[in-house]
Amino acid sequence: MSTEDGSSDSLEAVDAWWRAANYLSVGQIYLMGDPLLRESLQPDSIKPRLLGHWGTSPALSLVYAHLNRLIVEKGVPTVYVCGPGHGGPAMVANAWLDGTYSELFPDVTLDEAGLRRLVRQFSFPGGIPSHAAPETPGSINEGGELGYSLMHAYGAALDNPGLVVACVIGDGEAETGPLATSWWGNAFLDPRSDGAVLPILNLNGYKIANPTILSRIPETQLVEFFRGHGYEPILVSGGFDGEDPMLVHRSFARALDDAYDRICRIWTSARDAETLDDRTADRTADRTVERPPMIVLRTPKGWTGPAEVDGAPVEGTFHAHQVPLSGVRDNPDHLAQLERWLRSYRPEELFESDGSPSAVLDALRPVGGLRMSASLHTNGGTVEPLVLPDIAPHAVAVDPDGDGARTETAGATGVFGGWLRDVVAANPTTFRLFGPDEVASNRLQAVFEETDRAWQLPTVATDEHLATDGRVIEALSEHLMQGMLEGYLLTGRHGLITTYEAFVHIVDSMFNQHAKWLESAAGVPWRKPVPSLTYLLSSHVWRQDHNGFSHQDPGFLNVVVNKQADVVRVYLPTDANTLLVTMEHVFRTEDRINVVVAGKQEQPAWLSLEEARAHVDAGLGRWDWAGTELDGGDAADSDSGVDPDVVLACAGDVPTLETIAAAQLLRQRVPGLRIRVVNVSDLMKLQDPDQHPHGLPDEEFDALFTRDRPVIFAFHGYPTLVHQLAYRRTNHGNIHVRGFVEKGTTTTPFDMVHLNDLDRYRLALDVLHRIPGLEGKPGMRRLADEWHLARTEARAYAYEHGEDPSWITDWRFER
Amino acid sequence: MSTEDGSSDSLEAVDAWWRAANYLSVGQIYLMGDPLLRESLQPDSIKPRLLGHWGTSPALSLVYAHLNRLIVEKGVPTVYVCGPGHGGPAMVANAWLDGTYSELFPDVTLDEAGLRRLVRQFSFPGGIPSHAAPETPGSINEGGELGYSLMHAYGAALDNPGLVVACVIGDGEAETGPLATSWWGNAFLDPRSDGAVLPILNLNGYKIANPTILSRIPETQLVEFFRGHGYEPILVSGGFDGEDPMLVHRSFARALDDAYDRICRIWTSARDAETLDDRTADRTADRTVERPPMIVLRTPKGWTGPAEVDGAPVEGTFHAHQVPLSGVRDNPDHLAQLERWLRSYRPEELFESDGSPSAVLDALRPVGGLRMSASLHTNGGTVEPLVLPDIAPHAVAVDPDGDGARTETAGATGVFGGWLRDVVAANPTTFRLFGPDEVASNRLQAVFEETDRAWQLPTVATDEHLATDGRVIEALSEHLMQGMLEGYLLTGRHGLITTYEAFVHIVDSMFNQHAKWLESAAGVPWRKPVPSLTYLLSSHVWRQDHNGFSHQDPGFLNVVVNKQADVVRVYLPTDANTLLVTMEHVFRTEDRINVVVAGKQEQPAWLSLEEARAHVDAGLGRWDWAGTELDGGDAADSDSGVDPDVVLACAGDVPTLETIAAAQLLRQRVPGLRIRVVNVSDLMKLQDPDQHPHGLPDEEFDALFTRDRPVIFAFHGYPTLVHQLAYRRTNHGNIHVRGFVEKGTTTTPFDMVHLNDLDRYRLALDVLHRIPGLEGKPGMRRLADEWHLARTEARAYAYEHGEDPSWITDWRFER
Repeated sequence: MSTEDGSSDSLEAVDAWWRAANYLSVGQIYLMGDPLLRESLQPDSIKPRLLGHWGTSPALSLVYAHLNRLIVEKGVPTVYVCGPGHGGPAMVANAWLDGTYSELFPDVTLDEAGLRRLVRQFSFPGGIPSHAAPETPGSINEGGELGYSLMHAYGAALDNPGLVVACVIGDGEAETGPLATSWWGNAFLDPRSDGAVLPILNLNGYKIANPTILSRIPETQLVEFFRGHGYEPILVSGGFDGEDPMLVHRSFARALDDAYDRICRIWTSARDAETLDDRTADRTADRTVERPPMIVLRTPKGWTGPAEVDGAPVEGTFHAHQVPLSGVRDNPDHLAQLERWLRSYRPEELFESDGSPSAVLDALRPVGGLRMSASLHTNGGTVEPLVLPDIAPHAVAVDPDGDGARTETAGATGVFGGWLRDVVAANPTTFRLFGPDEVASNRLQAVFEETDRAWQLPTVATDEHLATDGRVIEALSEHLMQGMLEGYLLTGRHGLITTYEAFVHIVDSMFNQHAKWLESAAGVPWRKPVPSLTYLLSSHVWRQDHNGFSHQDPGFLNVVVNKQADVVRVYLPTDANTLLVTMEHVFRTEDRINVVVAGKQEQPAWLSLEEARAHVDAGLGRWDWAGTELDGGDAADSDSGVDPDVVLACAGDVPTLETIAAAQLLRQRVPGLRIRVVNVSDLMKLQDPDQHPHGLPDEEFDALFTRDRPVIFAFHGYPTLVHQLAYRRTNHGNIHVRGFVEKGTTTTPFDMVHLNDLDRYRLALDVLHRIPGLEGKPGMRRLADEWHLARTEARAYAYEHGEDPSWITDWRFER
Repeated sequence: MSTEDGSSDSLEAVDAWWRAANYLSVGQIYLMGDPLLRESLQPDSIKPRLLGHWGTSPALSLVYAHLNRLIVEKGVPTVYVCGPGHGGPAMVANAWLDGTYSELFPDVTLDEAGLRRLVRQFSFPGGIPSHAAPETPGSINEGGELGYSLMHAYGAALDNPGLVVACVIGDGEAETGPLATSWWGNAFLDPRSDGAVLPILNLNGYKIANPTILSRIPETQLVEFFRGHGYEPILVSGGFDGEDPMLVHRSFARALDDAYDRICRIWTSARDAETLDDRTADRTADRTVERPPMIVLRTPKGWTGPAEVDGAPVEGTFHAHQVPLSGVRDNPDHLAQLERWLRSYRPEELFESDGSPSAVLDALRPVGGLRMSASLHTNGGTVEPLVLPDIAPHAVAVDPDGDGARTETAGATGVFGGWLRDVVAANPTTFRLFGPDEVASNRLQAVFEETDRAWQLPTVATDEHLATDGRVIEALSEHLMQGMLEGYLLTGRHGLITTYEAFVHIVDSMFNQHAKWLESAAGVPWRKPVPSLTYLLSSHVWRQDHNGFSHQDPGFLNVVVNKQADVVRVYLPTDANTLLVTMEHVFRTEDRINVVVAGKQEQPAWLSLEEARAHVDAGLGRWDWAGTELDGGDAADSDSGVDPDVVLACAGDVPTLETIAAAQLLRQRVPGLRIRVVNVSDLMKLQDPDQHPHGLPDEEFDALFTRDRPVIFAFHGYPTLVHQLAYRRTNHGNIHVRGFVEKGTTTTPFDMVHLNDLDRYRLALDVLHRIPGLEGKPGMRRLADEWHLARTEARAYAYEHGEDPSWITDWRFER
């Protein structure tokens, strides 16, 4: 079978497979009947709305057919990541040819009836998308929004030491920023313990309506480009001006063999025991390391399609991007041209009389899970739950003193970092931490007691925590970090990404697309669950006082809550123990996107571990120790059912601190005022139960927030988000939200809350203003003046001294 | 003065300038008193909170000093784009040394008092940010969120044929996706009519806590990397292991001279009249074109700072990233080391006795606007209003017939495209259109009757609309397109970006940062206005039925409305004429971000140009011709003040169509029902006037939406956005919003509205359900059944035939 022995049998089979896949791709775009062309093509076999993208399909199928040959010959487990947009018809065609499609969609049988369903369903109402989507067997990458294929491939290859991940990249996609930086994935892949990524750049020359940059630079420059990225490019070109495809088959087969041989040499050399001591030794720039291969496959766009339509060139131009022949139902010339086009693949050689794939294709069909469309890796892998060590040893001891005061402090993410180190240790090959150079800045550096950062490039003596086999991956690209994590998760492993809150907006669109993937995958019966994507956002809006306005943006939550309720979760743990409990919970979830916002600075630790467990479980609740409802007397008793005068609600660590301080001001200075403090750690509790599964039932919401008392809600993010979530609640009209109102600069922490009217004095003043008659009571006007003065003086102090005054920084909770 | 004549006088001055800037950078990080070190350094001269980033500063100042030499020698107008994060201290220091700072901030005088203010204000409450921000003279790029420097530089160079834009890029920033694809800006810059970009990559080896990729690959690979991107790299390295900086000065000066000579050669050769015919001729890949230069400057991170602190290496490691010496107030050793560090720059040579810059620096100070910090280009340029041709010739003629029916249809963006062509023609050097390969897909192809796409790479015979001097720029990178447009706008020119609605999320974070730039710039008294950034989003959520779920996302609006009300505007023009009027308006604005969402498909043209002008002016209004209020009789008269039974509100083209069709169903089938149709084209009208300047006064809102009648609001985006904006309105409790609820797939246009419960039947049913007693009236239950059936049948038809039924597609408005 090998191409090296000169036999061309296998290449004849490759060509047959390719023709069959091309035939089925064209069929999917055009046909809704007579898929085997038993008769001459009739208008009513043509779809009324011609949708789909032919241009990219032939090269995708070419690669698929050739990879099949390699897999059959070498038995190498291979994942196919399809980068080019709208490549769905090719991927579906190949999945049907290898039998996977019919196994997963029993309606789409391996016969003429199945073929009719296959072609009809494509880009058809009630059918399947035009991209490689969750509905597409073997896919872990959506071809709708371009840019993420290669990072997904690198994520899939991690910790899969025997796996080859072939990633076809379109030359359009290659222009995106995320793809452009993905070439550097090779800096992180450990040839000892990770698999290999084989990028295959298909230069078909065009995107929608423009030529592509990489297809137009001189070939010498193209070679420099890839060598500059650390690859050994293997160039294959052909199919132009009617060139015999067999020539391309031969050179592409040779290229694939070369690439695979090179991968094997890299693996063998790296895995040779004698070289093991390199693992931690300093590596110098002049060591000789074989470059990983990549292939440049230059073929005409829409290759084998119509060369010309109505006298204008199509094949090899951007006019081949979508549907080369339009109006086929009503244009007999186009209809005839389509029939010639379809018959040019010689379907009679490719399908048995019952419509099943011809026996000539059998030799190219890998067995079972070696079929790329049936790869277990692309369907949740062999996902095992994370081993989760006990969080208790990491918990901050919070023991209210005799007066009920809580005076412990801790940096939440630092405490979590200690447990995360244990998680890394307990899951040595199935958990990864990703961050855009912010792991240490977000105070998770305890993980470096257990592991290092993965780094295959040279090192120097002053480097810290770099090793070829590190479990942490850091590059200064939120895109690359999220994309590699997505690839890792979608192949059934676990992970976490941590970044600055403001800059997670950089991957808003990747969040959206991953959410849409999960939303769609939930409707695909054969898709197995995958571990959740979890963000730990720290260095958040309220504590970027030193870095300034560009670093102050809590708006990611507004993007998150738009996605389907079954997928998204938002947590705002208030202190170290609630963060620990929250992370323990989210690491157990599947098929979710968990967004956790937590502070890294030293902050009060309000809740004991036990209290934190109960609080996170409930998602929100009264903190009676902070209000007046513990006190009895005039104030309402916890269980008395008497409503307080005011509810001080809070979500997020800094708003909670300010709220508790405000409650303390009020408790101490406004005797008799009945104050309830409510903390929200699970944001989706605010939404209606019929909008979100976490939504609190109305009667419980009313009991907590009352039906008619003023609620002063101190919120971590933009205030209107609370209104957006809670607008249906009974007491919504009385909810007055303070939050980030886009006022920021380089200043002190207290000045940040001051600027945005979220500070303790402002919250206390809000209460004075909102309770009828309170301002008129004796002493209240003086108190208001005093609080106004206090906030003004705090700012004046900061502007004079460069730091907050001690009456702010030394504030402690007392009862 | 030239470095070529062997004289080193100028390099001595360069070194002095560099030392002065370094001294002032360290001073800004540490000092709040005694900026000239007149006494031995005292703890109370040290800031209590040490904030700032030393690591990147020395290289930034090195480049600044050397560019000054070049400018003084050659008189070349130069813009300095500072990419590295937190490079503020260096940029501010240099701006003070060249006198610009004191001109723009008169308090910060060129003497000791000014110096005291200068050092104290940095990263200090009430002071200035740590990045090159709007507050920084000469800046058009914020160093807070990394990735956009080079694209800003390319945008600034467009249509500035004599300008050199020097862009310093940090090796951290170089890892981001947006920066990685920005190198391709060279594919668009026309050496005939555009300026030059000179990228200077500073390899200081580290980001926050990690080495950088580009600093660790072998030098041969680095050269390949840049040659692969089409540049001629010029390598400069030095400053390691105590090497004499004069050696670096010499080689960097030579590199700059080389680069500038190369730029001049490229300009001269391109501008030679004999080569002009190349402009449109096919260009082949083997033509010889001189590669534009770029410089790689490899220097130690934190060069000239402490080599070691407490025995640990700092200079040249990531420990030099921020504040090398900590706790200086309380640590006498650190205090002494800081003093030694500061004095190592020999301040006595650099400042006169009154604190002004020493006369030795005079020779390096360019005159007037040639000072990079005073560059007019970086402060709004010579902005001229766009010349706006008449829109009237492009307007769709809408003449309601005798019955009041409006039956014209048009594709809104296509009509706008015709006018846009005229805008391009009328502003041949000051307006640019940017798009990620979606200009034609968004139906703006009429511009290609007037101009082409800019493209400097080889062309082939089948290419269309490519020319070296095209006014349209397209690369498949939303990042690059937005970044180049930002650079173009911030230097005082005009433009538009058009993209698919769903994929504009890719640049969410760029939107945020540009909004923050405008928000901050508004508070900087010397910043001149800049033309607004305008998005035309088409191929929107409701008409991506064919491309599927990944292409369906209207959530950008949720990101937009979080920004300051003075900056953001959101328009949802409903038809061709309202789009024309809207664009005419937004093109006249300054300092805004305008988001316009409009359809490209054939849709009813509801309003005549005159009506559209009035409607867009008002931002929202009653469309009495669509409701019952024209009819008199039982129904309320326009001016009668009688409230209707129901308000059907709508925003966006597809929701408006469904609303008008629903109103028609109700008018025809529920006699006597008083219906008001309200269309909203300016979304911010919904917000309170005290939240947004466009907010409709409450009494007008109440008059339009009533105080107590049900409002069925059909909205373009996620429904909760309407609640978020309108939650304070009197009648908010009765506003029932339909919109995109994250249900999507590959289907038909009508099935998309059906899936999301936004279709005409659902809206009409909503009315039946929401008006007390209506469902109980004779015939209403049957009507409800009929409408339920109609929507079910429409879907069934589409799933059977692949297209919407004619009773949907042929629907026309009638009275």
